[in-house]
Amino acid sequence: MGADPGWHPDNLGCGVVVYPGTTEQVATVVQLCRRNGVSIVAHGGKTGLVGGGISKPGEIVVSLERMNRIERLDADEQVAVVEAGTALQTLQEAAAIHGLTPGIDLAARGSATIGGMVSTNAGGIMAFRNGVMRHRVMGLEAVLADGSVFSDLTRVVKNSAGYDLKHLFIGAEGTLGIVTRVAVKLEPVMPETATALFGLPSLAAVFALLKQARALGSGELAACEAMWSGFFGFSAANHGWSAPEYRTDNSVNLLLSFAGHGEARISDEIASLYEAMLERFPETEAVLASSLTQRDALWRLREDTEQIYHAYPAAPSYDVSVPLSEAEAYVACLEEGLQAVDPDLKPFIFGHIADGNLHIILNRRGGDLPASTLAAVEAVIYKDIRSLGGSFSAEHGVGSKRIHSLNETADPVKLHWIGQMKRLIDPDNLFNPGKLVLHPGLS
Amino acid sequence: MGADPGWHPDNLGCGVVVYPGTTEQVATVVQLCRRNGVSIVAHGGKTGLVGGGISKPGEIVVSLERMNRIERLDADEQVAVVEAGTALQTLQEAAAIHGLTPGIDLAARGSATIGGMVSTNAGGIMAFRNGVMRHRVMGLEAVLADGSVFSDLTRVVKNSAGYDLKHLFIGAEGTLGIVTRVAVKLEPVMPETATALFGLPSLAAVFALLKQARALGSGELAACEAMWSGFFGFSAANHGWSAPEYRTDNSVNLLLSFAGHGEARISDEIASLYEAMLERFPETEAVLASSLTQRDALWRLREDTEQIYHAYPAAPSYDVSVPLSEAEAYVACLEEGLQAVDPDLKPFIFGHIADGNLHIILNRRGGDLPASTLAAVEAVIYKDIRSLGGSFSAEHGVGSKRIHSLNETADPVKLHWIGQMKRLIDPDNLFNPGKLVLHPGLS
Repeated sequence: MGADPGWHPDNLGCGVVVYPGTTEQVATVVQLCRRNGVSIVAHGGKTGLVGGGISKPGEIVVSLERMNRIERLDADEQVAVVEAGTALQTLQEAAAIHGLTPGIDLAARGSATIGGMVSTNAGGIMAFRNGVMRHRVMGLEAVLADGSVFSDLTRVVKNSAGYDLKHLFIGAEGTLGIVTRVAVKLEPVMPETATALFGLPSLAAVFALLKQARALGSGELAACEAMWSGFFGFSAANHGWSAPEYRTDNSVNLLLSFAGHGEARISDEIASLYEAMLERFPETEAVLASSLTQRDALWRLREDTEQIYHAYPAAPSYDVSVPLSEAEAYVACLEEGLQAVDPDLKPFIFGHIADGNLHIILNRRGGDLPASTLAAVEAVIYKDIRSLGGSFSAEHGVGSKRIHSLNETADPVKLHWIGQMKRLIDPDNLFNPGKLVLHPGLS
Repeated sequence: MGADPGWHPDNLGCGVVVYPGTTEQVATVVQLCRRNGVSIVAHGGKTGLVGGGISKPGEIVVSLERMNRIERLDADEQVAVVEAGTALQTLQEAAAIHGLTPGIDLAARGSATIGGMVSTNAGGIMAFRNGVMRHRVMGLEAVLADGSVFSDLTRVVKNSAGYDLKHLFIGAEGTLGIVTRVAVKLEPVMPETATALFGLPSLAAVFALLKQARALGSGELAACEAMWSGFFGFSAANHGWSAPEYRTDNSVNLLLSFAGHGEARISDEIASLYEAMLERFPETEAVLASSLTQRDALWRLREDTEQIYHAYPAAPSYDVSVPLSEAEAYVACLEEGLQAVDPDLKPFIFGHIADGNLHIILNRRGGDLPASTLAAVEAVIYKDIRSLGGSFSAEHGVGSKRIHSLNETADPVKLHWIGQMKRLIDPDNLFNPGKLVLHPGLS
């Protein structure tokens, strides 16, 4: 059993980890903890980015690591039932044997677990097509604070049998119970048949390209990732990437993957796409990956975000959702606002542009910026985010790091009921205290 | 303002309907009702099938009929924001102008409202592709029992900003609040390019066909509806439908629609599909619609369920979800079980087979069967439905008609928390009393 703290140094702060092997054992642990007033932090792959898994002395960590079995995978039904500790990649590989995929993918696939992804309502690369984790979950089992087991392991998409309470546990970050089993919807796999990188002068050009890319005759759009110039230039330099006649200072770079029938036909259509873009936006540039190696190199430019944290350890980072119609104005406002806070702040901006999810990392090490500057930065990044129809936390969650931001940006009525839910379902604040919500009965 | 009771004679049983025009007016009505101890039944299109909209003297109906504006429809963003009283067909038509669709469709499209569909978590024909209403909702606004407004009108798919409480209101059948506005995800419209009817000897043949139909080269499967012989024979006779060399007594009939590029190519592929099926199942028959008139005639066979209720007014009907891997055994068990209850019981079986949703209507008028027989019928139809991974109510909901079935089939832990939610969010049992859940504080 590993004592690796994962992506946050305080994940194992409590010093005690238990490894139940069954739902019944989880329930026993919960009952023991409740009786002894010991709080529980549930752990999946420990790849969370907002301190949702940190633990303190006096608490215990319940690791789902041993509960990693794929219990059922029916190819015709296109549903898998897995224990919560199953890694995403494990499920992806098992499904791929049948030509299927869980329909969700993210860079941390090797360690992120299905239970953790349910608890954080993970998003990733394919959400613009297949929705987020919430939309992939057909059924769910969870252990509640009294040790009882909430069991709703349906394997059907249509279920109107009373309030659908599983959605309370999805995205609850382990504060309402411990997810132990999940029924996941699968989709036919779409093998990537073409990957292209476009250099574009503006977000308007990105959306024009996106619209056409979605309507391609032979291939379906399988991924659509944006990298603004600051991010792209940094990444290209770091990886020593270049391509003939492709500048690295384009305003935005768009990485597109297509899946479909007929590789040659799709490549032809991408070439036409490029021609059409050139007519409207003469600055457009494009690179079509002509080998798997080239494809992987393009994806590395986008997925290797560790490089930024290597240069700027624990750099302040943000993860917002913005409706597409608001995205251009939002980014302009963001860049201008950060300039006003500090002219040397150069945000690395990248993300899943087809669903409006932008990641923003500052070019500063954690702790380098005074609290007042960080507050000013947040004021810029979260400005009007809710009234714009977006979200201050797209896919990383709230954890311990973002409770104040949730409190500042959320609808007060929603906030009130979040507190009420916590009090009702976890009255003793047994589960993951200090994360997502401050317990209204105790704070 | 219509005084049409809709699909249940008791919908207007209370005799009083108010027609608010804004969310604020809904909130005012709620506050007034709360102060005076008057319960509220919210009405959408009044096309519910489980008595979720019935009202009693002393209550009032709040109709969302006047709140029928499409407030926003952004073609690039592919999101619409509508008032809850907007009819599905109204939204479909507005979206179609931009080549888009709400991604959900059902026979009652002309009258069913978006708010009602949210409240019942409607399913329909496209759920196997696009999910149910719950998966189409990006944001939601609702008036709560204290007159406050829960406002979560995000227009982004990624939102991990605390418990996603909108899912409590989706499928709550108006028992927790009144849905007033909804942000709905749109999809590119897939024009039907081919419609075919297959006659098949077994459910195994249906699934074999379904698998191949999903993997068609040129066309995507847009609809997949099954009609068992009893239903099909009745419908064909009623509509005077026949086709050369197509028997009406096939074990199952499958109506398939395809969308895609190149009508001729798709037709060719359907012909190949038929050949391939013939090899494995020599009894296979097929009709390909060669005109819009023929297509509409095929769809009418499936969608005109009124004909059954015309022959058997208020016939007992059921709506279950069964995982595909269990469907064949389930139907065999069902037919055998109903035979054992009464050899003259001939169920009409049809439904959305690609997502495992079966509708079952008995060949009896409402009131014709004694309670003991109905109990025996339910025991057959709902036998092991939860442990099979299915649901006793796929898309019709619970309403007033199915509370006892919910109580008998649900996980007791889930049932407990359904009651707790009702008590917490609607402590005075103001909203739609006697539907979905019996108020634990009052029963």
